[in-house]
Amino acid sequence: MDLPQLLDIITLEHVDAETFVGRSPVDRDRPVYGGQLLAQAVMAAAGTVEAGRVPHSLHAYFIRSGAARTPIEYRVEAIRDGRSFSHRSVIALQDDREIFRQMMSFQVPGDGLRHQEPLEIEPGIDPATMTQYRHWVEALSDNKDHGWFGEILPLDLRLQDPPPARPRSPITGTLRIWMRMLGHVPTDDPCIHAALLAWMSDKTISDMTMYPHARSWTDTDHNILSLDHTMYFFEPARADEWILFTHETPATAGGRGLARGDMVTLDGHRIGALSQEALLLAP
Amino acid sequence: MDLPQLLDIITLEHVDAETFVGRSPVDRDRPVYGGQLLAQAVMAAAGTVEAGRVPHSLHAYFIRSGAARTPIEYRVEAIRDGRSFSHRSVIALQDDREIFRQMMSFQVPGDGLRHQEPLEIEPGIDPATMTQYRHWVEALSDNKDHGWFGEILPLDLRLQDPPPARPRSPITGTLRIWMRMLGHVPTDDPCIHAALLAWMSDKTISDMTMYPHARSWTDTDHNILSLDHTMYFFEPARADEWILFTHETPATAGGRGLARGDMVTLDGHRIGALSQEALLLAP
Repeated sequence: MDLPQLLDIITLEHVDAETFVGRSPVDRDRPVYGGQLLAQAVMAAAGTVEAGRVPHSLHAYFIRSGAARTPIEYRVEAIRDGRSFSHRSVIALQDDREIFRQMMSFQVPGDGLRHQEPLEIEPGIDPATMTQYRHWVEALSDNKDHGWFGEILPLDLRLQDPPPARPRSPITGTLRIWMRMLGHVPTDDPCIHAALLAWMSDKTISDMTMYPHARSWTDTDHNILSLDHTMYFFEPARADEWILFTHETPATAGGRGLARGDMVTLDGHRIGALSQEALLLAP
Repeated sequence: MDLPQLLDIITLEHVDAETFVGRSPVDRDRPVYGGQLLAQAVMAAAGTVEAGRVPHSLHAYFIRSGAARTPIEYRVEAIRDGRSFSHRSVIALQDDREIFRQMMSFQVPGDGLRHQEPLEIEPGIDPATMTQYRHWVEALSDNKDHGWFGEILPLDLRLQDPPPARPRSPITGTLRIWMRMLGHVPTDDPCIHAALLAWMSDKTISDMTMYPHARSWTDTDHNILSLDHTMYFFEPARADEWILFTHETPATAGGRGLARGDMVTLDGHRIGALSQEALLLAP
């Protein structure tokens, strides 16, 4: 999939005032990718909100696995349109079964107090020269044939300061993953950029839940299922410029792991934050 | 309000299979407290879930201000009951207007991978000897008459390593607030303890969004409105034993601020995490 194809995927068919239909890439026979559900739900909700209001947060649950060859119906409920905020709930269905639900809030952009907790980005670094994240995962995985390593994505994924990639060696602390869309996004629409950031954010966030256990979701006998997803957009950012996603896992327990992190631009500006809980499938 | 009164507040009237009614403390003429909505919604959802399933996450939006003298109707939607997980959506209404919505997930407790990212709690510390958090806020606030400083709460709230409490002096970094219910909670029910943790978690989490701006929500001309709330419960914990809530604010922008943190027991065990975005009302 390239960027025009991804932009096509997040462009939904408008069925009626609150119903939209989205499709998955035709070359995909795995379950629907969670980031696609997040992104399509952002676009469905945005399609019902007054122009000029921009997404500042979303909260989603992954309910059932989605089938890539079946269209996805998005039903939007307008919870409230206030003076400054619009709240939406979006339900995604396949064959009338709910596979996903997302609540969102949009805000009329405004001024107000501004603060950034310091976060050091070394001047002059160039993510394009860093280790490709998928090469690093491949090196520590016991399954070099995993489809993800060769999947064509419209995404440049780089790992800053990669820990040594030794199979069966635990990795803890914080990962610094840089991402940007490969290609130019031909719009400034903050809803489309938020949708693309949501799409990319689900690529790697939960990977970190497995690393402390000296395993990767790409290992032969392991996997991760996303349970939920939360994003905060402090201010608009472009998905085709480098964004640092930090990933940390405070704890795993009861078969679940939380991953969370920050979204930061190359000039060190915090533009958002995210978290995801995942189910760790391990023998 | 004392602990028996709070336990009474979170004990809902069961109207029918998916409808519950909750009330607010009668001595309160301010808007309904957000933590009460979180806690009552936990109890409403739990009232529709098979015994033995425990809450592991919740995601809520505060939609409208609630009136303390009006009963709150909680309508629960069973999104799905699977083998291991139950998903619920809870809508809170007053006079048929939605004031609050919460999605939740419950899980059959299980084993599985376990990891804790190290977090230092100094051995032998006793939160009961620490600064009372409300005394500290009062010292830095310009409005010593704010009702919150004298409100009777069934909650012991302590601040570890308090930064100097000087009015108009910015505070950044991480706050360490210890909390426990005052009194014994006469049950082990993990749903009730989760509801109480939700109730207490909303007392202070967003305070931190205002401190970098050298202001407090208790100041004369400032306030904070909670926009949303997310909690993860890694494993059950008792609300009447000390829990450390860490609070940090990565950024504020566009009039909004994110606060987030960890929940940790006195022996240094991470039992959960939380985040809340808030609207900063400042002249």
